[in-house]
Amino acid sequence: MASDETKVTSGTLIAAEKVEGTDVFNLQGDKLGTVDDIMLDKVSGKAIYAIMSFGGFLGIGAKYHPLPWARLRYDRDKGGYLVDVDRKTLENAPSYDMDADFLWTPEYGRRVDKYYNAPSYW
Amino acid sequence: MASDETKVTSGTLIAAEKVEGTDVFNLQGDKLGTVDDIMLDKVSGKAIYAIMSFGGFLGIGAKYHPLPWARLRYDRDKGGYLVDVDRKTLENAPSYDMDADFLWTPEYGRRVDKYYNAPSYW
Repeated sequence: MASDETKVTSGTLIAAEKVEGTDVFNLQGDKLGTVDDIMLDKVSGKAIYAIMSFGGFLGIGAKYHPLPWARLRYDRDKGGYLVDVDRKTLENAPSYDMDADFLWTPEYGRRVDKYYNAPSYW
Repeated sequence: MASDETKVTSGTLIAAEKVEGTDVFNLQGDKLGTVDDIMLDKVSGKAIYAIMSFGGFLGIGAKYHPLPWARLRYDRDKGGYLVDVDRKTLENAPSYDMDADFLWTPEYGRRVDKYYNAPSYW
């Protein structure tokens, strides 16, 4: 495990481990969830999705919501990411259970991009 | 903490948490260290450095070596990243102590990029 020293943020750089665990809010200020992981393009090393965990109790019924990285904006005052999605929209968004095995397919990725009206990665 | 399901790799995507903990080898096949964290550009979301942990005993005297992401290549057979650096070069490379507070500066970043002959981020 990394110690806190690697989690340092310089002006323009941020550690992946610092992104993980950061809260996500909508523009109304409601907390939607927490960034659990980041999906990177293997070749370019570019972050494509933030995997947000959401809801459930002690992990039961909890879900992962992939959010297109392009839709996230860091808000210094909030200390978290803002995304322009209301709760209802999020509830109907593509997601998968934490307990289930899940394999990303191009079709699933396209569905996510389209749902959030983000430029398609696929 | 993420469960294993988020660590799934699709064809072209990889989870940041899957990159963390992955071994780094040189072209001679020597293990140089392990990826501990990834430094991303905040705006573009692009991986700029892999922070490799290296050496030490039970964390004492252990060091972090930032490696330019552009210098890493994933090797499926090895199950790790390859970087064209011999051990001696690595020993003299820019690094910082795990125990110490450390703040990235543009000067430090430029020194890393130059040392590994990588396109400069700064």
